[in-house]
Amino acid sequence: MNSYKSRFAPSDSDLIYLDGNSLGRLPQAAVALSRQLVEEQWGIRLIRGWNDGWIDLPRRIGDKIAALVGAQPGEVLVADSTSVNLYKLAVAALESRPNRREIITEAENFPSDLYIFQGLQRRFPNLTIRLEVDPITVISEKTALVSLSHVHFKSGYRHSMVTINQVARDAGAYTLWDLSHSVGAVPIDLSSADMAVGCTYKYLNGGPGAPAFLYVRKELQPQLQNPIQGWFGQRKAFDFGLDYEPQTGIDRFSVGTPPVVSVALIEPGVDLMLEAGMDWIDARRSVLTEMLLQANLEAYGFQPVTPTDPNARGSHVTFAHPEAWRINLALIQAGVIPDFRAPNFLRLGVTPLYIDESDIETALNRLRYIMQSRAYENFPASRPTVT
Amino acid sequence: MNSYKSRFAPSDSDLIYLDGNSLGRLPQAAVALSRQLVEEQWGIRLIRGWNDGWIDLPRRIGDKIAALVGAQPGEVLVADSTSVNLYKLAVAALESRPNRREIITEAENFPSDLYIFQGLQRRFPNLTIRLEVDPITVISEKTALVSLSHVHFKSGYRHSMVTINQVARDAGAYTLWDLSHSVGAVPIDLSSADMAVGCTYKYLNGGPGAPAFLYVRKELQPQLQNPIQGWFGQRKAFDFGLDYEPQTGIDRFSVGTPPVVSVALIEPGVDLMLEAGMDWIDARRSVLTEMLLQANLEAYGFQPVTPTDPNARGSHVTFAHPEAWRINLALIQAGVIPDFRAPNFLRLGVTPLYIDESDIETALNRLRYIMQSRAYENFPASRPTVT
Repeated sequence: MNSYKSRFAPSDSDLIYLDGNSLGRLPQAAVALSRQLVEEQWGIRLIRGWNDGWIDLPRRIGDKIAALVGAQPGEVLVADSTSVNLYKLAVAALESRPNRREIITEAENFPSDLYIFQGLQRRFPNLTIRLEVDPITVISEKTALVSLSHVHFKSGYRHSMVTINQVARDAGAYTLWDLSHSVGAVPIDLSSADMAVGCTYKYLNGGPGAPAFLYVRKELQPQLQNPIQGWFGQRKAFDFGLDYEPQTGIDRFSVGTPPVVSVALIEPGVDLMLEAGMDWIDARRSVLTEMLLQANLEAYGFQPVTPTDPNARGSHVTFAHPEAWRINLALIQAGVIPDFRAPNFLRLGVTPLYIDESDIETALNRLRYIMQSRAYENFPASRPTVT
Repeated sequence: MNSYKSRFAPSDSDLIYLDGNSLGRLPQAAVALSRQLVEEQWGIRLIRGWNDGWIDLPRRIGDKIAALVGAQPGEVLVADSTSVNLYKLAVAALESRPNRREIITEAENFPSDLYIFQGLQRRFPNLTIRLEVDPITVISEKTALVSLSHVHFKSGYRHSMVTINQVARDAGAYTLWDLSHSVGAVPIDLSSADMAVGCTYKYLNGGPGAPAFLYVRKELQPQLQNPIQGWFGQRKAFDFGLDYEPQTGIDRFSVGTPPVVSVALIEPGVDLMLEAGMDWIDARRSVLTEMLLQANLEAYGFQPVTPTDPNARGSHVTFAHPEAWRINLALIQAGVIPDFRAPNFLRLGVTPLYIDESDIETALNRLRYIMQSRAYENFPASRPTVT
């Protein structure tokens, strides 16, 4: 049923890994690639590696990600981190809409996105950031930017992207999506979107902290200016001219030298996604998330916060439970890795390339045992304070 | 005489690599580390890697770099690219000096630095960027920021950092140094400097495009605000609060999730530097650069543009020659890798950890043969246009 499991390097023999929504597993192909990258490309080829292909990586892998998100070649670039990319595109959008100083977002957006917007208030003093319960209803001709997480990191709720894009466009507002919890998890069609950013280390299996990507609709690219003008966004960078002259396409949103090893390691995971296809992944995601929601965990005090409609959720299922922290620790000890999100959420990530029904069943059996035996009571009741 | 050569992985057997000023070689220790990072830390430990040490890497390696540049622990952080770091610190400096809108720099600064400043003119409309031939002479009470490359990327000229820092401080101006061509090449004492950024993939041997570092003097840290407010700069990031509350120390200049593999691979090269010590490296650099300058290459039409005083240069020697492009190609074919910088410069980088007198002698012999035989005339006369 799941022919992709063997394409990932083995972890602990008995482990059920339900945290691919936080850090995806290691594709087998990435093992050979990393050796080749470090030991041959860096070690032997040295500076010649740039001519051998390093220089093309951000665009080449970007084009592959484009195929996963309904974008065109030349619309997606691998660069920087998700937060830096969000900053670049949000500033660009606000600069190109000088008469609009309102960003519509929501409290359920990933906090880093909200922090980025808050920082923009020093640059744009009259900028209003609206945290809205129902963002689509307040989009108006005052709105510069509508920026939401496509799938919420806590609840797993998925926005109806096309509807929101249409309303925003009708009002003359830009859209800027954070796809971190949806890329590689659910089908995405960016054709109606203006801008997007996203993460490669979750469902794309790109490696810890792997660089992020950004998307800008082709027609918009010439109108938007990268506020962080570095030499990788410069036309004819190796002429070393004194004046910045941005590249014409998506490369203008590049800044500094990309971290080659971490960038290159994104590709094997993306290739696996393309091989499996988003239709297959989506169908499997739907079945497997449903298994978790239908497991009657309410009997143990779990409250699902993830939508029951499979088309209104992503690829993780979240339960609230007063003992979520201890249950999370007990699960890890029992060989199931979920994740905990403050204050009382347990997230279970479904990644169809390496998780199937038997894994979900095993994880549920271990969880039921922990709840019936109250084994979680052996763990500290609250999370240590991290400063 | 050079006991560190064997600590680097072998490249082509006959290669003399004089481009460590552009991309440093692969430390042997990085080979084992990269396998362990990818195959064990990512592949087996998965998300648990963050608790095993990934989260500390930017500060831990930063503290080691601090020891190379005369900074204190807690003053240096590995993050982003050099250009992104320069942007963050330059914005922070200008925001904290609202009555000063002048940056003093020079045409010899690395162009990416100039591009970053030019981009700031959209944010700070009355910002003046002065390209000065003798920057120290024009620092005044109007100056917000003096920002220079410590060692010039083309000529190898080295500024007298302490003198400039003193004049700037007396005028109430901030200093922001780009150490890309000096860190790991020459002794640096940042104790009189306010801010700095630098590159890890050149003399530090951190790997292709390896993430950069930034330095902020401890007393300044609370006064400066990172304009790119991401979750890695947030106190108690895993509380996922809705409002940005920056970390108190150097971590406030962090933004997004760091690219772990590329970050971790910086450490072996830095460790080798610390083991050799900057005094030894500096003494060797001085001798080896002198060999190049004393080789009487003027006889073949080479004009040295690097200062004759060893304390006024870095660790590369640059010659102007009308045929620099073709000579560069002929050298590569002859097993010597220099680099070419437009319009007519040949740079020869000296990296004492893996280059010694016999390497320099061999390289010079090959160069002399190329010039005597006019072998360079077999190559295209000008560089292909790269767009």
